[in-house]
Amino acid sequence: MSSYVYKTTRRGVLLAKTVSYQVRLCSGNFRHLEVLKDENNVAIVTMKRAPVNSLNTELLTEISSVLTDLEETKCSGMILTSFSDKVFCSGLDIYEIFKSKPSAIGTSFSTLLEVFIKLYGSTFPTVAAITGHAPGSGCFLSMSCEYRIMVQNFRIGLNETLLGFRAPLPFVKLMLNTIDHRNAELALTSGRLFSTNEALQVGLIDEMAKDRADAFDKANYFLNQLKMRPPIARHFTKQSMRGALLQDISINREMYVEDHVSLLLQPNIRQLITVYMANIKNKKNSKDTRTTPVP
Amino acid sequence: MSSYVYKTTRRGVLLAKTVSYQVRLCSGNFRHLEVLKDENNVAIVTMKRAPVNSLNTELLTEISSVLTDLEETKCSGMILTSFSDKVFCSGLDIYEIFKSKPSAIGTSFSTLLEVFIKLYGSTFPTVAAITGHAPGSGCFLSMSCEYRIMVQNFRIGLNETLLGFRAPLPFVKLMLNTIDHRNAELALTSGRLFSTNEALQVGLIDEMAKDRADAFDKANYFLNQLKMRPPIARHFTKQSMRGALLQDISINREMYVEDHVSLLLQPNIRQLITVYMANIKNKKNSKDTRTTPVP
Amino acid sequence: MSSYVYKTTRRGVLLAKTVSYQVRLCSGNFRHLEVLKDENNVAIVTMKRAPVNSLNTELLTEISSVLTDLEETKCSGMILTSFSDKVFCSGLDIYEIFKSKPSAIGTSFSTLLEVFIKLYGSTFPTVAAITGHAPGSGCFLSMSCEYRIMVQNFRIGLNETLLGFRAPLPFVKLMLNTIDHRNAELALTSGRLFSTNEALQVGLIDEMAKDRADAFDKANYFLNQLKMRPPIARHFTKQSMRGALLQDISINREMYVEDHVSLLLQPNIRQLITVYMANIKNKKNSKDTRTTPVP
Repeated sequence: MSSYVYKTTRRGVLLAKTVSYQVRLCSGNFRHLEVLKDENNVAIVTMKRAPVNSLNTELLTEISSVLTDLEETKCSGMILTSFSDKVFCSGLDIYEIFKSKPSAIGTSFSTLLEVFIKLYGSTFPTVAAITGHAPGSGCFLSMSCEYRIMVQNFRIGLNETLLGFRAPLPFVKLMLNTIDHRNAELALTSGRLFSTNEALQVGLIDEMAKDRADAFDKANYFLNQLKMRPPIARHFTKQSMRGALLQDISINREMYVEDHVSLLLQPNIRQLITVYMANIKNKKNSKDTRTTPVP
Repeated sequence: MSSYVYKTTRRGVLLAKTVSYQVRLCSGNFRHLEVLKDENNVAIVTMKRAPVNSLNTELLTEISSVLTDLEETKCSGMILTSFSDKVFCSGLDIYEIFKSKPSAIGTSFSTLLEVFIKLYGSTFPTVAAITGHAPGSGCFLSMSCEYRIMVQNFRIGLNETLLGFRAPLPFVKLMLNTIDHRNAELALTSGRLFSTNEALQVGLIDEMAKDRADAFDKANYFLNQLKMRPPIARHFTKQSMRGALLQDISINREMYVEDHVSLLLQPNIRQLITVYMANIKNKKNSKDTRTTPVP
Repeated sequence: MSSYVYKTTRRGVLLAKTVSYQVRLCSGNFRHLEVLKDENNVAIVTMKRAPVNSLNTELLTEISSVLTDLEETKCSGMILTSFSDKVFCSGLDIYEIFKSKPSAIGTSFSTLLEVFIKLYGSTFPTVAAITGHAPGSGCFLSMSCEYRIMVQNFRIGLNETLLGFRAPLPFVKLMLNTIDHRNAELALTSGRLFSTNEALQVGLIDEMAKDRADAFDKANYFLNQLKMRPPIARHFTKQSMRGALLQDISINREMYVEDHVSLLLQPNIRQLITVYMANIKNKKNSKDTRTTPVP
């Protein structure tokens, strides 16, 4: 397989600020993703749905599709990141939730769970290089990876309760596999967003990075270390830790989707969303769109 | 609703050393409890069964009754505390256990589990302001709250094993939702009582306070922070963390009660209680009744 | 019961470097174990299968047999240790695994699980005095005890993934009862061997010792502290923490054995073992047999 210097790749421009080694553009024609592979067969998947990578069905479908591709082409690892140096992922797309029919809301959440199943159970190691804020489903997405490296001075957490919704049960269960029960309860019942440093203390992330380049250095170090381990042994061991939750979400996926949709259709919740969207709009007009944490 | 300055309230005298803000006496005529509400609709429930708040059926029934009232009147939070600056709660009333018929022992423990179910699953946030020692069921009671603030230089823990009984299974399970498995096992198999500082290190309490006033400041700060969160969202999230244990205790309550009664009726256990009671009596005679840790 | 100064005991020579108090040789004629009891009725079980206490069926059967004896003779505690100051236990005997028929591999692993059931659920307290490396099943054996004290500058962990096998599910579950979920996942998926100090930080061991004598001092201190607790209360409490895993392993033992055997019979795994054995042989020839970590 030949590889190209990233500078010659039209869409590789996103990576210019990221890595200084050889990459090649992967097959696949994605609107909201850039997928590159480096010389070590590590895939770098960059979400690039401006401005804040809010997760709509289209973006989620693309991520799901890439994960299938990467399983088939047997990549040796994956780094999930954001084009933005301010937001990793703002969570589910609230406009899609608000404007769509119930069936569409369900499709979006069901696709998120599909992404979880593929990501959390992937045969290859996965790292989230969290280059900005990661509230709500952005945090969920990063917890679905195997390792989390986060740039300093941002915020991450399941803040649904703060916003008046509540964290879906799959989110709660995934957090319980990541940090301890007591801290999970305190965080979830208050909808707490952790600073990068607090997230490190509590174990919600594994490493803190100075900036994007540092995050990528650390991600590559983590992946390189694992190269010595036979992939099949790693995968089986990973399954022994993650199998129970994967099975739960797979079997009960429809139930979780229905639960989520019925929550978001409640009039008082819809009213909270309306207020919330108005706040965002006001913020936009005042040129401050940096953080739009949505579950 | 009008509110009274606490000084004008006859029974509010207990609170005089606690808070300096406006409170009013709640409805309800309790022998062993004082229930007040402050200007923020936070209920302050003070156990006042001298000398050490040992939990007999009457006190437990009163706590259970208050919890139902507070659900119905939609308070915005609750602080559970003790009239004493030495003992938060010494645990189950050993004299009641010793002198009563098996059915009465069962009633007492069953009421304790009823209190647990209401307290652990309450729709409003709950804080234990632990102003003194909290052994055995006193620790259990505080773990049933949502947040624990404890005055320095006291002791807390499930010390049943130390005394020759054993921690009831609901106690064990609640501790596992509070601190990690390894520390829980070490503590339970040795019947360990933690100092306030040790309890903080291990996560058995959330904050340490200098004294009662400091504990109340911290409790109010915790409750104030939560005011921003829609109560319904908080409650649902709390349920997602606590639902499994609540369901377990509710469904198996009778089994746990029978298990507890049959344990306490064993001759060797009764003998231990006899010895233990004699020790307390001796201590009383020597004017030192500060700690009477009973499961 | 009379007790003998260890120096008069022919096989007690092993203990000469360990303790300076009175011990007597236990009944039982073991090839790979030395079993002594001290004046406090604490049994000291020393594995002495040179060079590295690799666990073959014979050694495992002897440990299982001793555990039954100790239950029957109601010892007040047990310290499990190694004759070696370099290796506590190197794990399962890879030569036995490689040369044996499938049924023999199954017997070996089944006996290991039998040892686990007796050790993890023993009525008396158990301490592992880890005087050297404890990879793979050596780590599993120590985690089956109630308390772990490890001499500094050695390594411990479930390194199966590193070697290309995978940690058997009972190993995974036992680790989850010992350290937290996140650290367990990181350790297991990378086959990480912790230094003594790292193991202490993560909670895989409870105390670090300077040397064997220090480890024994600490073990005796731990056991002495427990003497105040009524054994029956301790045992019931221990069961309430460990009962679920004990039941799981007991009920599903055959399934776990079959799973293990079928793994070790896979051609690619056998090939890895062959390479591994060749490496050990080369090391032996170069006089360096200090660490032979085998799962």
